[in-house]
Amino acid sequence: MTHPLLSLNQATIKYADLATALRVTSDAGYRSIGLWREPVQHTGMDAATALVRDSGLRVSSMCRGGFFTPLEGPERRRAIDDNKAAIDETAAMADAGAEGSRAVLVLVAGGLPDASRDLIGARERVGHAIAELVDHALATGVQLAIEPLHPMYVSDRAVVSTLGQALDISEQFPAEAVGVVVDTFHIWWDPDVLTQIARAGAGGRIASYQVCDWATPLPADVLLSRHYPGDGVIDFAPMTRAVLDAGYTGDIEVEIFNQQIWDTDAATAAARTATAFDAAVAPQLP
Amino acid sequence: MTHPLLSLNQATIKYADLATALRVTSDAGYRSIGLWREPVQHTGMDAATALVRDSGLRVSSMCRGGFFTPLEGPERRRAIDDNKAAIDETAAMADAGAEGSRAVLVLVAGGLPDASRDLIGARERVGHAIAELVDHALATGVQLAIEPLHPMYVSDRAVVSTLGQALDISEQFPAEAVGVVVDTFHIWWDPDVLTQIARAGAGGRIASYQVCDWATPLPADVLLSRHYPGDGVIDFAPMTRAVLDAGYTGDIEVEIFNQQIWDTDAATAAARTATAFDAAVAPQLP
Repeated sequence: MTHPLLSLNQATIKYADLATALRVTSDAGYRSIGLWREPVQHTGMDAATALVRDSGLRVSSMCRGGFFTPLEGPERRRAIDDNKAAIDETAAMADAGAEGSRAVLVLVAGGLPDASRDLIGARERVGHAIAELVDHALATGVQLAIEPLHPMYVSDRAVVSTLGQALDISEQFPAEAVGVVVDTFHIWWDPDVLTQIARAGAGGRIASYQVCDWATPLPADVLLSRHYPGDGVIDFAPMTRAVLDAGYTGDIEVEIFNQQIWDTDAATAAARTATAFDAAVAPQLP
Repeated sequence: MTHPLLSLNQATIKYADLATALRVTSDAGYRSIGLWREPVQHTGMDAATALVRDSGLRVSSMCRGGFFTPLEGPERRRAIDDNKAAIDETAAMADAGAEGSRAVLVLVAGGLPDASRDLIGARERVGHAIAELVDHALATGVQLAIEPLHPMYVSDRAVVSTLGQALDISEQFPAEAVGVVVDTFHIWWDPDVLTQIARAGAGGRIASYQVCDWATPLPADVLLSRHYPGDGVIDFAPMTRAVLDAGYTGDIEVEIFNQQIWDTDAATAAARTATAFDAAVAPQLP
């Protein structure tokens, strides 16, 4: 079966356009989908809104905003403006989704600017950028969700590496405006992970829970090293229980970047995701 | 010039046998070398002792013990016995080295056992194994040095990923028996790194300071992703100052696993290491 809280993040079936992704997800018995901006924009906002509404699916999150680390200047201004647009798109998609949709915009912090070694400065600029977006998030009812990424991505993708660090930034702002993403792949290694999940939940900051697995050897492109739950070495039980104990009741996304999975048929990947989730994650769910 | 505190870790010139490594290191003006067990054992302990003594070099550390994560049974017993032998070898090499040599055995924790997902259990077994070694370390005057490895190695190489975690284990034992390794490559991403370096120094736990650089994209084999200081994105100044402020006065090793560097002539690599260290690290030194 396809668990009623399971959401298929669109990145898992990356090569499907929005209409196909919605159809495949719905046909596979899912009630929820996590959307990405690029396929939504490719479809056009009006058409995308209609497609999402007609699908009857919940929207569990929107990927992604962020990339906040440029120094002040035109590139940084473009990033801030683009994030405001992303907030609007997130609000529209959540509004078009079925009851229980979550207006959550996932934020990837961004890496070091070219030729920079100033990791501390880059991290400060993430908080400053979010400060510029909070009013717009509050006005549109969108929760920004800071996603800590695995430390192997720190220099080129996300200078926020731990859940504790994401919470340190998030807690500078109201919880309804800024939360965090708990993604097993990125934080399972952290000796402090269960404590930080509890902290996130206590503050109402868990905006999204995403699951996928870690296996070695890593592929040549480490961005594509995510696996179906159960195909790797992550024990999903403690983190899933911690997320539930922390009060999270929303959908749970499976988001996988993996060339082999992308190369399979989207319907096959959707079905395989549901089976993997049932075996590895669902036993912890109510 | 070759900085008087700079030590060439033998792994940087991996293909040189012990006699060659000592000669190349000495010829390049170094006063210190970090040894590995395999080339020492290949030479034989008596011959290795004589070679090290004749070289006039300090020995800054011995790599490596550890791999403590097997479940109880013959494999675990072999690991413990092998670590006791490594302690003896470390004491012998430090004794053969010039004044100022450090009897420090670097420990790599080990990854998850085959088919295991029990990261918490594996971490507990690291502490238990060290508990079995402490008396032998104290008796021989060797300081065991727990090395946190980058979280991308957590499943297959080292379940100890942060300096804080290494200190949590280390602090269960006397500082003269158990310390930690501060290796920029492994921990530079950690938002808590400077605080933990200070903590390590306050407790007399900095057994070794190792420097090399991080650059992306990572190579296909992520074990070989280390670079000459200055060739990547790490800012060595804050960590080096923190290590010095924490009271560390020992040698500083450059340890690089990198196929291109291994494929260069050992003398060239030794000279290039000294030049890189002078530019990226030495400006912080007294």
